[in-house]
Amino acid sequence: MKILVLGGDGYLGWPTALHLSAAGHTVAVADNFARRGYDHELGVESLVPIEPLQARVAVWKELTGADISVFVGDLTDPVFCHRIIAGFRPDAVVHYAEQRSAPYSMIDRAHAVYTQHNNVVGNLNLLFAIAETDPDIHLVKLGTLGAYGTPNIDIEEGWLEVEYKGRRDKVPYPMRPGSFYHLSKVHDSHNIEFACRVWNLRATDLNQGVVYGQQTEQTARDERLATRFDYDAVFGTVLNRFVIQAVLGHPLTVYGTGGQTRGMIDLRDTVRCIQLACENPADRGEYRVFNQITESMTVQQMAETVAAASPDQVAIEHLDNPRVELSGHYYNVTHTKLIDLGLDPHLLSGTLIESLFEITKRHAHRVGTGLGEARRAGLGRAGLGWAGRAGPGRWPQAGRPTRRARLVTAWPK
Amino acid sequence: MKILVLGGDGYLGWPTALHLSAAGHTVAVADNFARRGYDHELGVESLVPIEPLQARVAVWKELTGADISVFVGDLTDPVFCHRIIAGFRPDAVVHYAEQRSAPYSMIDRAHAVYTQHNNVVGNLNLLFAIAETDPDIHLVKLGTLGAYGTPNIDIEEGWLEVEYKGRRDKVPYPMRPGSFYHLSKVHDSHNIEFACRVWNLRATDLNQGVVYGQQTEQTARDERLATRFDYDAVFGTVLNRFVIQAVLGHPLTVYGTGGQTRGMIDLRDTVRCIQLACENPADRGEYRVFNQITESMTVQQMAETVAAASPDQVAIEHLDNPRVELSGHYYNVTHTKLIDLGLDPHLLSGTLIESLFEITKRHAHRVGTGLGEARRAGLGRAGLGWAGRAGPGRWPQAGRPTRRARLVTAWPK
Repeated sequence: MKILVLGGDGYLGWPTALHLSAAGHTVAVADNFARRGYDHELGVESLVPIEPLQARVAVWKELTGADISVFVGDLTDPVFCHRIIAGFRPDAVVHYAEQRSAPYSMIDRAHAVYTQHNNVVGNLNLLFAIAETDPDIHLVKLGTLGAYGTPNIDIEEGWLEVEYKGRRDKVPYPMRPGSFYHLSKVHDSHNIEFACRVWNLRATDLNQGVVYGQQTEQTARDERLATRFDYDAVFGTVLNRFVIQAVLGHPLTVYGTGGQTRGMIDLRDTVRCIQLACENPADRGEYRVFNQITESMTVQQMAETVAAASPDQVAIEHLDNPRVELSGHYYNVTHTKLIDLGLDPHLLSGTLIESLFEITKRHAHRVGTGLGEARRAGLGRAGLGWAGRAGPGRWPQAGRPTRRARLVTAWPK
Repeated sequence: MKILVLGGDGYLGWPTALHLSAAGHTVAVADNFARRGYDHELGVESLVPIEPLQARVAVWKELTGADISVFVGDLTDPVFCHRIIAGFRPDAVVHYAEQRSAPYSMIDRAHAVYTQHNNVVGNLNLLFAIAETDPDIHLVKLGTLGAYGTPNIDIEEGWLEVEYKGRRDKVPYPMRPGSFYHLSKVHDSHNIEFACRVWNLRATDLNQGVVYGQQTEQTARDERLATRFDYDAVFGTVLNRFVIQAVLGHPLTVYGTGGQTRGMIDLRDTVRCIQLACENPADRGEYRVFNQITESMTVQQMAETVAAASPDQVAIEHLDNPRVELSGHYYNVTHTKLIDLGLDPHLLSGTLIESLFEITKRHAHRVGTGLGEARRAGLGRAGLGWAGRAGPGRWPQAGRPTRRARLVTAWPK
């Protein structure tokens, strides 16, 4: 198959491109390097050094003989967006090319508007480009499990069978997300469902949980193929961040009781899920949703798991929760559709955590670079929160855009 | 109360401003005149001539002695948006300032992106401006009943009490709208619900049905206070359009069987609903939704009602429906909250239709202006569809942006 990976320079996009290439598909990637730009803005960087995209692609060619085409541009540019779809003519488009941090979207008004504009308009341009080029092209869209919020009923895969006052219907699952970023994904999902319904497009919306891990079989072949490993409070995901805190001898910092439950997935399963979605496309006119997680844990359980796997003594510190979220709540997420397609999950294990310890130790000397810049940029604790005075992830307080409103989110990333 | 009406130059915004002023409130209006710009773009105009906003305001001052302040600018400009909220310091903001035509949003990619960008970003800027200035300011937001789509269960007012697998929750009502315009309102609603939940703002989201009528007690006082009366296929609403077709001796054109049911409301009730919402604000942190309709009818019933009220013989013509929508479906909309606040509805009557006949006859010589321009602008039947070969509202076919995708909507406007 011909598969175009949008956002193919990112934490997940790059390993996905390699995985699909290794599986024998013809792969192209597109990126505007916005993610590398956020590093400059925030004064942070990946713990593991990453090569320029062109170098990554050259190394992969050298190792495997396989070509990965590179398109550089922005999906909010409709001409670029149309050109890559019409030019490459993919069978499937994997769409990672969105601003994907909840804290980033909550920094201030400008970041909220940027996030929703960038994500919603890019995705709209993509829907039109597919409809205009070939409505058979399968859109594989990355969404987020956080879009659902924490309802008191089971979270189903995108649709809900309701019985109400003696009548029945299958309706889009109600969404109550916790940041302007998560809201942008909710907006995308509504736009995509509409495009499938009225234009007869085909789409898979992958509501993914918190991803952990840093290596896949392909990225591990050469250090120049490494993907990002983020530990800052804006782009670092919670489990990866705990590992780095443990290695550095910092306490693992948990909001409130840590009773917030979240769905999780190993990076190696993410790339496999994308492959399964591409190779088993949605039907024409079908808008299907998969909950892309393999297990659920509370934040406290994640901290305890990391602490238990650490060779050193590790403390867990509970901070006041600056976010409006329930610290203990019902959470039961259905996630059977990817299993039905053949996913054989890697559950969180000591082995995985040990390999993350090893990676972290190798690069620990890089920690902390750029903190000063983040402060100078006025982002305060938003920049490198966890290394700062107030502990990890306390992004909203210092960088908040408003005089009176508390800018808080319900998302634990 | 101090009330700021955003979009105060429009079909509903202007009569609302007058109604609130007549009720003794201190009123300001803001507008960027985008609505007047769409007329130029499409080569159409209001059947009833309208005065410039500054002239309207001067006439109102002359008649009543009451001042209405005018702010000219665009909500997508965050500086303007912040300035009018912080400067005027309203108790309530009535937000009409969005692109409000489904067909317009479906003309092509550029119009879809414009609509979502304009509406979503303007509303985001407004949420931030309120949160920054004073979270006590009550946002009264115009939404659309079309956001719900046509579910097979009762449509409740914004929230749904669900029982699922033995557990219960109150969740946002699932949305499945029929155009990029309607989707923009769904996006707004999700953003507003979030802002109420995490910033403790107060908001009333008015999911309004199709509005008909052209006069209120205030606009009828002087012809220079008249509001718009649109009959084109892009901005004209279905009942007003039927009246004009009847007066001109054209057949009333109905898509398919006309079995599509829609909620409706008289313009005089719209302005009264806004007053009730402003004078009975939502609580702090409350996101409440009112379904702003007074009755439901099928498109066929509307056509028959207009035909029956016409002094002349009127034909009803059924056209192939270019939209993906159900022509017969369950439709039961709860709308009790505004009644509870004191709304005494004007139901559709022969008297109202006769007054619309009278207004239409007086201005019938103005019909058709600009048709040539609309065609030259490449909009084809989108411009003045109902006067064109294929009948009213067949906007998507000629102006469609895509080679293959059918750009269709589920909305009968």
